Amino acid sequence: MTGRLGDAWRYCIGAGRFDLALRRDYQDSLALLQREIGFRYVRQHGLFSDGMGVHRPYDHGGARHVLHAFTYVDQVIDAYLELGIRPFVELGFTPPGLASGDQTVFWWRGNVTPPSSRTEWAALVRATVTHLVDRYGIDEVRRWPIEVWNEPDLDVFWQHADQDAYHELYEATALAVKDVDAGLQVGGPALSPGADDGWLPRFAEFVTARDVPVDFVSRHGYTSGTAQHVPFGVHQTLAPAATLLTQFGAPRRQLAGTPLAGLPVHITEFNSSYRPDNPVHDTAFHAAYLAPVVAAGGDLVDSFSYWTFSDVFEENGIPVSLFHGGFGLLTHRQIRKPTFHLYAFLARMGDEVLARGEDHLVTRDGDGRVTVLAWAPVDHTGLAAPVTGHRVRLSVPVGPPGTGTAYVARSSVSEEAGNVWAAWRDMGSPRSPRPRQLDALREAAEPARRHHTVPVAAGLACLDLTLAAHEVTLVEVTAVHDETPPWWDEDRLLGAGGP
Amino acid sequence: MTGRLGDAWRYCIGAGRFDLALRRDYQDSLALLQREIGFRYVRQHGLFSDGMGVHRPYDHGGARHVLHAFTYVDQVIDAYLELGIRPFVELGFTPPGLASGDQTVFWWRGNVTPPSSRTEWAALVRATVTHLVDRYGIDEVRRWPIEVWNEPDLDVFWQHADQDAYHELYEATALAVKDVDAGLQVGGPALSPGADDGWLPRFAEFVTARDVPVDFVSRHGYTSGTAQHVPFGVHQTLAPAATLLTQFGAPRRQLAGTPLAGLPVHITEFNSSYRPDNPVHDTAFHAAYLAPVVAAGGDLVDSFSYWTFSDVFEENGIPVSLFHGGFGLLTHRQIRKPTFHLYAFLARMGDEVLARGEDHLVTRDGDGRVTVLAWAPVDHTGLAAPVTGHRVRLSVPVGPPGTGTAYVARSSVSEEAGNVWAAWRDMGSPRSPRPRQLDALREAAEPARRHHTVPVAAGLACLDLTLAAHEVTLVEVTAVHDETPPWWDEDRLLGAGGP
Amino acid sequence: MTGRLGDAWRYCIGAGRFDLALRRDYQDSLALLQREIGFRYVRQHGLFSDGMGVHRPYDHGGARHVLHAFTYVDQVIDAYLELGIRPFVELGFTPPGLASGDQTVFWWRGNVTPPSSRTEWAALVRATVTHLVDRYGIDEVRRWPIEVWNEPDLDVFWQHADQDAYHELYEATALAVKDVDAGLQVGGPALSPGADDGWLPRFAEFVTARDVPVDFVSRHGYTSGTAQHVPFGVHQTLAPAATLLTQFGAPRRQLAGTPLAGLPVHITEFNSSYRPDNPVHDTAFHAAYLAPVVAAGGDLVDSFSYWTFSDVFEENGIPVSLFHGGFGLLTHRQIRKPTFHLYAFLARMGDEVLARGEDHLVTRDGDGRVTVLAWAPVDHTGLAAPVTGHRVRLSVPVGPPGTGTAYVARSSVSEEAGNVWAAWRDMGSPRSPRPRQLDALREAAEPARRHHTVPVAAGLACLDLTLAAHEVTLVEVTAVHDETPPWWDEDRLLGAGGP
Amino acid sequence: MTGRLGDAWRYCIGAGRFDLALRRDYQDSLALLQREIGFRYVRQHGLFSDGMGVHRPYDHGGARHVLHAFTYVDQVIDAYLELGIRPFVELGFTPPGLASGDQTVFWWRGNVTPPSSRTEWAALVRATVTHLVDRYGIDEVRRWPIEVWNEPDLDVFWQHADQDAYHELYEATALAVKDVDAGLQVGGPALSPGADDGWLPRFAEFVTARDVPVDFVSRHGYTSGTAQHVPFGVHQTLAPAATLLTQFGAPRRQLAGTPLAGLPVHITEFNSSYRPDNPVHDTAFHAAYLAPVVAAGGDLVDSFSYWTFSDVFEENGIPVSLFHGGFGLLTHRQIRKPTFHLYAFLARMGDEVLARGEDHLVTRDGDGRVTVLAWAPVDHTGLAAPVTGHRVRLSVPVGPPGTGTAYVARSSVSEEAGNVWAAWRDMGSPRSPRPRQLDALREAAEPARRHHTVPVAAGLACLDLTLAAHEVTLVEVTAVHDETPPWWDEDRLLGAGGP
Repeated sequence: MTGRLGDAWRYCIGAGRFDLALRRDYQDSLALLQREIGFRYVRQHGLFSDGMGVHRPYDHGGARHVLHAFTYVDQVIDAYLELGIRPFVELGFTPPGLASGDQTVFWWRGNVTPPSSRTEWAALVRATVTHLVDRYGIDEVRRWPIEVWNEPDLDVFWQHADQDAYHELYEATALAVKDVDAGLQVGGPALSPGADDGWLPRFAEFVTARDVPVDFVSRHGYTSGTAQHVPFGVHQTLAPAATLLTQFGAPRRQLAGTPLAGLPVHITEFNSSYRPDNPVHDTAFHAAYLAPVVAAGGDLVDSFSYWTFSDVFEENGIPVSLFHGGFGLLTHRQIRKPTFHLYAFLARMGDEVLARGEDHLVTRDGDGRVTVLAWAPVDHTGLAAPVTGHRVRLSVPVGPPGTGTAYVARSSVSEEAGNVWAAWRDMGSPRSPRPRQLDALREAAEPARRHHTVPVAAGLACLDLTLAAHEVTLVEVTAVHDETPPWWDEDRLLGAGGP
Repeated sequence: MTGRLGDAWRYCIGAGRFDLALRRDYQDSLALLQREIGFRYVRQHGLFSDGMGVHRPYDHGGARHVLHAFTYVDQVIDAYLELGIRPFVELGFTPPGLASGDQTVFWWRGNVTPPSSRTEWAALVRATVTHLVDRYGIDEVRRWPIEVWNEPDLDVFWQHADQDAYHELYEATALAVKDVDAGLQVGGPALSPGADDGWLPRFAEFVTARDVPVDFVSRHGYTSGTAQHVPFGVHQTLAPAATLLTQFGAPRRQLAGTPLAGLPVHITEFNSSYRPDNPVHDTAFHAAYLAPVVAAGGDLVDSFSYWTFSDVFEENGIPVSLFHGGFGLLTHRQIRKPTFHLYAFLARMGDEVLARGEDHLVTRDGDGRVTVLAWAPVDHTGLAAPVTGHRVRLSVPVGPPGTGTAYVARSSVSEEAGNVWAAWRDMGSPRSPRPRQLDALREAAEPARRHHTVPVAAGLACLDLTLAAHEVTLVEVTAVHDETPPWWDEDRLLGAGGP
Repeated sequence: MTGRLGDAWRYCIGAGRFDLALRRDYQDSLALLQREIGFRYVRQHGLFSDGMGVHRPYDHGGARHVLHAFTYVDQVIDAYLELGIRPFVELGFTPPGLASGDQTVFWWRGNVTPPSSRTEWAALVRATVTHLVDRYGIDEVRRWPIEVWNEPDLDVFWQHADQDAYHELYEATALAVKDVDAGLQVGGPALSPGADDGWLPRFAEFVTARDVPVDFVSRHGYTSGTAQHVPFGVHQTLAPAATLLTQFGAPRRQLAGTPLAGLPVHITEFNSSYRPDNPVHDTAFHAAYLAPVVAAGGDLVDSFSYWTFSDVFEENGIPVSLFHGGFGLLTHRQIRKPTFHLYAFLARMGDEVLARGEDHLVTRDGDGRVTVLAWAPVDHTGLAAPVTGHRVRLSVPVGPPGTGTAYVARSSVSEEAGNVWAAWRDMGSPRSPRPRQLDALREAAEPARRHHTVPVAAGLACLDLTLAAHEVTLVEVTAVHDETPPWWDEDRLLGAGGP
Repeated sequence: MTGRLGDAWRYCIGAGRFDLALRRDYQDSLALLQREIGFRYVRQHGLFSDGMGVHRPYDHGGARHVLHAFTYVDQVIDAYLELGIRPFVELGFTPPGLASGDQTVFWWRGNVTPPSSRTEWAALVRATVTHLVDRYGIDEVRRWPIEVWNEPDLDVFWQHADQDAYHELYEATALAVKDVDAGLQVGGPALSPGADDGWLPRFAEFVTARDVPVDFVSRHGYTSGTAQHVPFGVHQTLAPAATLLTQFGAPRRQLAGTPLAGLPVHITEFNSSYRPDNPVHDTAFHAAYLAPVVAAGGDLVDSFSYWTFSDVFEENGIPVSLFHGGFGLLTHRQIRKPTFHLYAFLARMGDEVLARGEDHLVTRDGDGRVTVLAWAPVDHTGLAAPVTGHRVRLSVPVGPPGTGTAYVARSSVSEEAGNVWAAWRDMGSPRSPRPRQLDALREAAEPARRHHTVPVAAGLACLDLTLAAHEVTLVEVTAVHDETPPWWDEDRLLGAGGP
């Protein structure tokens, strides 16, 4: 019921492919994210893909050579560290010059065929990790989890979804990493939610049999059903949000009794829909849908990484409209979606958990400030009209036992408040809004803020919260230390209504 | 009824004494002011006072000399121009080394006795203006009004309130200014609201008789009654706000028929109370009280300058508390008071006036965007409970005649919304709030924002506004150009409530 | 000999392909460029290429449609205008969905085949220009030159280098532009230096015969010979720099007597080598080689646009090393090359040309400040040792005729000073320098600065400049107005050497 | 000979009075200082003086009360912590409302008479420290040394220089501080260099006898003789710089054998001249004069604090000219004086001392980078012509024993280089330079930078440095790791001089 809130919810955040991190919009969004939320790590695809220019074969003196170039890698990671975030390194996909076939994934053509040369791949991994250690120092790089590939159980991400081939790749990669320094952390296999229950046990068996290093286990979580397509978009059904918690718990269940049982588990991607063109990501519904997951996920895993922080993302091509169903907590140009606020609210909570419920989480920080996160119930089918007027009643401790007053500040997003998608719809869905419209959208994206005071009796304050449709609300309660001077007489203030 | 809104309302803004402009808090506030409102000129006392170090007598070779030093003057004006604002120069008070007595005004001791040497005063004026012209160029400085002294009709500001002595000072000063360049603008006499009706005509008579140059006429406006003191503060009654408009109109009435009749009139200071420690300045009441004045003042005068933009102000000593009844639109550390928002709202209006009323002003800008400023009625005695539920019903033109939809965004401050004073009171009136409290106050200072759509018929949209207690509201209405794609089906969006 | 310096030298600057403008490094470099030089326009390839996502065919209701999306275009141009620079619009290349073949140019695959549908191309052009006018206003967009395609005389840029096909494309495009607004400026044909002398006359004949609008004529200038390849680089010979001036003059010569004779001529690209991997671009030699061209080009054409401002450029793939022979005035991460300083020096000159010579240019600004740009002679074959000790002796006017002193500040880049390439070589050519090395390179990239005083007699000061190898130097001469106080005695200053 | 360089040289820096810290120029300078040098603490006078408004007596209900207001104190300290520096708190002078007389010091009138009420003084101290602990936390404030008064041995700073009265004040203050928290550090007595040798022993005797807490001992160091006045300035003789080291050592000598013998010793002010209007502070001479002191002071004391970082300082009134002999490392508007560079050079050194000499200091950092600080000899009488051509020859270790190359970067200030005072003199000593002149001064203030390579043999590189007049130079030596590709042929580079 109580305990520590911990950092699992903000341990990691997903992002568009590596070379998008060179963009100003991406970095401006990341700066905002770090200022208002503060994630620890960022994970993304495409470190070895064409746009990063790392693996560079050339001919000289009649022979083939490979040069490893880190021009862009360094630009990205320098920017990350400057912004107070570290890379959660995903090694993949196959560089074009090292590919064994031409199957690609995404609009930006990540090659998903196994490397044509295990030796050259290992050299690439070793050169990359060595370079990072040289530039950033071994103490720093030991803190960066290194994950091998992405969703090898799906044939769109790994040719034929060949598990044995993945095992070979994993072994070559993990050994190359540990070659550089035994203290580096390597893991995988970044399974999709669709992987069969035997996948992880077979992986455990393989690495145990071959004594291959594994420092953590990773998988993904999504709840969406089949995509029904419209131009530049899809609609999908969703399973209940609790399904995500079930998915988060799967690795520990599946690995129970294996030698990997005690390892850290990272959910290196999760979201409702796995599509970057599903409008559900932009809605107030979405924040309320995910609120119980974000509030509880930390009990099950070491991290669960929202996929992704920004709509700067091109897996399905370049978005044709400001709102387009992207994964981002932020749109292009840093407009906050409701789910951004869910995270920003959590970032203002304390670390001590005082209470939990199906519609709320109560915490306290070191200064005695109590915070409540509460959320309205959600019908995951989307068929029912949203519930309005849901009430959450709580009694929370304020300061030392005694009587007095507490200052209560409440911030909310809901269908009515901080729902920038609705404002954009009201504006006529402008594909590329003008500067004045962007300003209006930024204003519409702000949560509603209210404040009042409540009496404190026996060290407790009563809160009675009524939630709007799909509301997620943060309530901050602080004891009032009254410094009103003795000569102050409110009645003498003009406009106060007189005596 | 209609016409141009013009710039009189933002032509000039008042500020604390000159050397306060060296402060970071002052400059940060000015930067914010310029970003969100954009005044043209800033006026303040103390150019020649001790803290600016301009007039510097010294002995050398057995004789007395005077050096004129502009170290700080240049720092201030460089900063102003960089921030896009120009000085409205007030010449005064008397430098300590040139004073004929030791009577001072304010905590910071501005000397209000006539210069001991008319020659040395003229040399000081000439040196100052020459320096400004050398540094900033004659074209620039010709745009800066130069005002002689401040409220010489009050004996706290001018020894014995001796009008003849002021006339002499004015003549010496105006001639020294014109000596540098005939195209410079000089004026006065910056009368207080208490000046008798004959003051200006006598001034007109004097300058006419002696052919002394005058390029503009200036006076001040305030509506407060006698101060009732409490420690570090006062309470005062107020006259109705319309009294200010009467005061604004006085110079033209009093000068009718004199040779000064056609001159520009600048109200170089106005506010409700003339005290920097009257809590009325901090209230929502204050914004509603001044709204009709700010909306209409431009019909009467060339400018009317709110006194002052920031609480960085020390006439009564250093404030002992964040809120202390200061004049500022902004507190220390840039917290927006309701009256700040009144100005910020006006800054978002168009220049074409479509309609006016006792509780509203309607404008349109070049892009066709219509804006409405509306305000709740105010009981200036402060005895009655504030009116709630006041309604303003308007029909406004939107785009070309036709049918469609308009996007309506509304921002409001009132007793309930954007009333940071009330939040600070709820917090227990912390004298020096902690960083987290300052953040909470900044949030509480934000106007409430709402948006919705309204139908447009025959090119007109109907607005029906209900105003809260002491509300000032800005409504922005823009025609919707619908880009919703033909395949969009709102019912397929999860959480929208289904079909 | 004398006259106005004008703005032709900074009218336009080249840049990497359009979507690179979304990068932070690109925008940081552009901001620096604007702060220290201040160009008017920026031109680049790839507006319609894959990475911009403008042309978006889709199927709906059983039919093919095209949506035009300006998500990224707006981000780029918003950033440009914010940085005080405007686009010099190049229309091209063919969007993948509108191409008639699959021939591409560059690593980033610009499609150079004619549009498969003239109608759809015209619709694309019209939609693009209409969108720009809607967003930025017609007054603004009328100031943006619009150029049709790039180097259609080369078969790498235009399939078969088919001039007739280009004429067709030009006509369709120019008419589509003028369809939107007759006041927009359209031109071409952006010829390469290799175009035969008859190309432009044939173009003139075509547009005259068909009455096709042309508002300006454009071509390019380069002086390099055949490329000799090494891995990730080339070496080339260069023609004398004066060859560029000959190329600049070609359009007016070739069009003399045609109806296009009086049109503005823009050199929309020029440089020494046309290769982005020729180390000559990084050298001190390069600044001295181009100095006479940049100083004189404005006599011949309306603009000549250095290709390009930044090494953020990927035509040959992603650079493998910080210095790699890129076109940029700035490397990745904003390190100034010597040629950057050539432009920065020119940006500090006045507009009145006082004197010119084969090794110098003398100007004066409105404040009377005289500036001299001087440069050492260059052996374009690169075979001779660089000349050291070249002397430039000049007599320049300072202030009103009389005697006195002038303050002389001199900034220089040469083989010895401000030669960051040499510093990087000394460091061992680090491919991806560490932060501390980047700082050291930034310091090494600073010009050498010296100052001294010279006597002024009869209003003239004599300058005797000795130039180091490949030096380009800027000398600023200002009259001294002495404010040293009468009591100052230098001999009493400790360390001055005593009496 | 060797050891750790430590932080004593940058433990603390002096500053103008407390309320000047509210100025933008002050804070901009502090930001620059922290970016380029990085001090730990800042110390200044005037915490309780009029301009800070802390001690606020008032009458209410017929009685006298005192309110303690921290409006400005919090603004200043918030800014410090944000800039990464902490206050070294000096408690003084006497608030006007608590003074026993009207003797003041400085243009800004610090009252130097004992408090009229020991109780009210103790309450003031207790309230202040309690407020700081409440706002910043006890862990933070325990790190701030708290010093009682300033130079009580001088009658200009402490009425009659009455040591017994100081002892009483010290006791009351120290007890009040420890009342708040026993872990806070309190100390004194901040003696002037002129205090007699018995002062400290008497102080030790007093605190021992009365068991008064003392956590550290402080005094000051200056070397200037009698002031010879000119208008707005003075000239003074100086003792040899080594005199400062003698002064630094005095407290430990004088306290040997007393119970205070083992306490930390802080030199809370030092400089050459103690006058803020002595031009020596602005000179290149000054940096060379102080170099051996700054390089060696850390052997003698726990800190020695240069007085002061900025010319924003008004003890003698407002400066009449940009250069005026102020203490500042920086002038108004952030122009670096040579002594600034002395500190900036030291900030780039490593912590391991490899060698020391009368004209040099050699260190190494954790990355193996070796740095040399060297300085030219100085004639402290100022009568001899400055020595030019002084040579320093050193052999320094580079990387692992072996052969190779080292990159050597050298930065210098001297009479010729980075001597902005000389440039300002050349400009005619403009009192308030125009923006363009300020830019030119900033350029002239930059150190000269050179770089070259030297061979490394047996792990050693030889440096042979020739120093200009009054030069202070920093040499940074790093081993070259050569990444030049095998195909690179320098002779093929154009302009390199050919084969």
